[in-house]
Amino acid sequence: MQEIRRDQLEDICATALRAAGASEGDARLVADHLVDNDTVGHHSHGVMRLREYVDAIDRGELIPSARPRIVSESASTARIDGGWAFGQVVAEFASDLAIEKARVTGTSSVTIRSVKHIGRLGRYAEKVAGSGMASIIFTCGGGHGINQAPFGGVERKLSSNPVAMSFPSGLDGPYVMDMATSVVAEGKVRMYRGRGLQTPSGWIIDSEGNPTTNPQDYYDGGAILPLGREEGHKGYALAFMVELFAGLLSGGGIPGDPTDSFSNESMIIVLDPERFVPLEEARERASIMTDHIKSTRLRDESRPIMYPGEIEAAARAANQERPIELAGSTWEGIVSVLRQFSLPEPPGDLPDLGIRVEEVLAALDEGRLER
Amino acid sequence: MQEIRRDQLEDICATALRAAGASEGDARLVADHLVDNDTVGHHSHGVMRLREYVDAIDRGELIPSARPRIVSESASTARIDGGWAFGQVVAEFASDLAIEKARVTGTSSVTIRSVKHIGRLGRYAEKVAGSGMASIIFTCGGGHGINQAPFGGVERKLSSNPVAMSFPSGLDGPYVMDMATSVVAEGKVRMYRGRGLQTPSGWIIDSEGNPTTNPQDYYDGGAILPLGREEGHKGYALAFMVELFAGLLSGGGIPGDPTDSFSNESMIIVLDPERFVPLEEARERASIMTDHIKSTRLRDESRPIMYPGEIEAAARAANQERPIELAGSTWEGIVSVLRQFSLPEPPGDLPDLGIRVEEVLAALDEGRLER
Repeated sequence: MQEIRRDQLEDICATALRAAGASEGDARLVADHLVDNDTVGHHSHGVMRLREYVDAIDRGELIPSARPRIVSESASTARIDGGWAFGQVVAEFASDLAIEKARVTGTSSVTIRSVKHIGRLGRYAEKVAGSGMASIIFTCGGGHGINQAPFGGVERKLSSNPVAMSFPSGLDGPYVMDMATSVVAEGKVRMYRGRGLQTPSGWIIDSEGNPTTNPQDYYDGGAILPLGREEGHKGYALAFMVELFAGLLSGGGIPGDPTDSFSNESMIIVLDPERFVPLEEARERASIMTDHIKSTRLRDESRPIMYPGEIEAAARAANQERPIELAGSTWEGIVSVLRQFSLPEPPGDLPDLGIRVEEVLAALDEGRLER
Repeated sequence: MQEIRRDQLEDICATALRAAGASEGDARLVADHLVDNDTVGHHSHGVMRLREYVDAIDRGELIPSARPRIVSESASTARIDGGWAFGQVVAEFASDLAIEKARVTGTSSVTIRSVKHIGRLGRYAEKVAGSGMASIIFTCGGGHGINQAPFGGVERKLSSNPVAMSFPSGLDGPYVMDMATSVVAEGKVRMYRGRGLQTPSGWIIDSEGNPTTNPQDYYDGGAILPLGREEGHKGYALAFMVELFAGLLSGGGIPGDPTDSFSNESMIIVLDPERFVPLEEARERASIMTDHIKSTRLRDESRPIMYPGEIEAAARAANQERPIELAGSTWEGIVSVLRQFSLPEPPGDLPDLGIRVEEVLAALDEGRLER
């Protein structure tokens, strides 16, 4: 376990991404997303991804200097080609465009294709809600990241195809739902394996289709089951529809006809609540409903009922000033990236990191440092 | 069990609805929806609802002569007040408007409020897909029809808040997902009770929050659990978001601030796939994906993997020419409505029903029959 301050960690990541070929703006944006995802407790979408992103750059799958491009658009729609840029850069661009279009016509839908890992959908959903708008986001893997068995099937054919939705609130954080359409995201199975634990029953099957709690069985050709368990036909149907909206309408890859490499193709739908009811009234009435639902008698007094997004809002508030705790393997991944680009390694106890983006930029400009 | 031909059943229902105060067009539309829902196997949204609709008219909650009205609109949005008309009439009007707007701008969202039971969401989703468009539909109960416990809670606070999605296909039927965000819709619990069966474990809790398989426990103050079972936080979050989109943005009722009576408030989102990719290309690639997914190795060789909507498409094809089998209680409900309006009762064996809308209309017009 390694403890590190948010701003230090963000500097390290931005420096590494800059060295890997990203512009300063893109490096900062991606670093901010990664560190924020750790801050709200979603480490599977946090800085542990840095090593993976740099590997994708090394393989030529992620083009760090690429910019998203609008392929076609109408009053309420746009189709964006990400040019294999950082997913966060493409998804932020698409979210901004969807918000802009919804402000003009009231509703919009924007797709992205040829786009690497976009990270946590909730981050874009939060952004839309922060602009006073509501969102629905569908994401698939372009026919890659296949991990989910269709209901009644015993082999992987779908990605975990997440769905996010958001709505402005008058509370600490916006209403944000962000969920895999499989029982769990693959990252959780990986976490159980990493810790040497058995997964809860009902998550995975082995390569023969037998239920198992050994996470290794998933990696040996097993599959994750669809959301719903006995009602897995619902999670499967959701995952299927996500492929149609995000994969097909982005013009990207789908199971059975994939892209060359993993592509986090997405559909971002944005609605302007003001076209329906005054936003303040919506916020107030949403709070009435939230109080009403949170007042439900509890199964376990120590586990209160949360509104969607409450966990992340609470974690962000609690962790903003705290150092981030990183797993040893995550820290090793970061250090390996720093070494790859001959960047100074932070001292073990990190009292002062001694790495600043400005220094690296200057070193790059002056030819003291190579990409 | 009563067997009856589709056209006879539709005539009976239309006649009864006409007698209850609906225009001929509305009576035919509602009757067609009810009989079609029986045809595709969703009897909970079929003609068993006729008695309930007439009761709502008798209570003054459903106004059979009312017409939906556009309260406000923009290029891509509209908010509709149903005036407490038949839900089917209001939802058809809203679907048409959403399709029309999406054809112009590419994406649209339309809400309805003050609207009685709209029936099976899949029916509207099928309509949208049939027009070459894609849909997302959210529906709530206006703060009524409360049957679902929030995740971690032991009392009902939400309706089963269904979600539907559709996409055009090149197959026998369109891609249509239509699901409750609870483990099951309440109608299924009712069906188990009616047949004297125990419900599967994991569906319901009793009034103390204990898991139970006795359906009566639900009716004695219990609750249905959210979709997902152990992952019920996902079904709960979906149900919560549906309330925000459908309840709040329709300007209707919500849990904690309900309307005067049950209102099937909805949000209908329509996208024009042609704004993204040529529709024919989308259909072809969707078929490639469908074949790929359906070819998955099966858990049980007798249970093939279906695409979302395949069951309904197959049932419609198989049942179109077959008589519909109605439960005795459903038939009694229909006969009681006919008696209420002094309409001729069909003979027991129904060789020829002897009831035609034209006759009833003439009788109404000539004062031989009272409303």
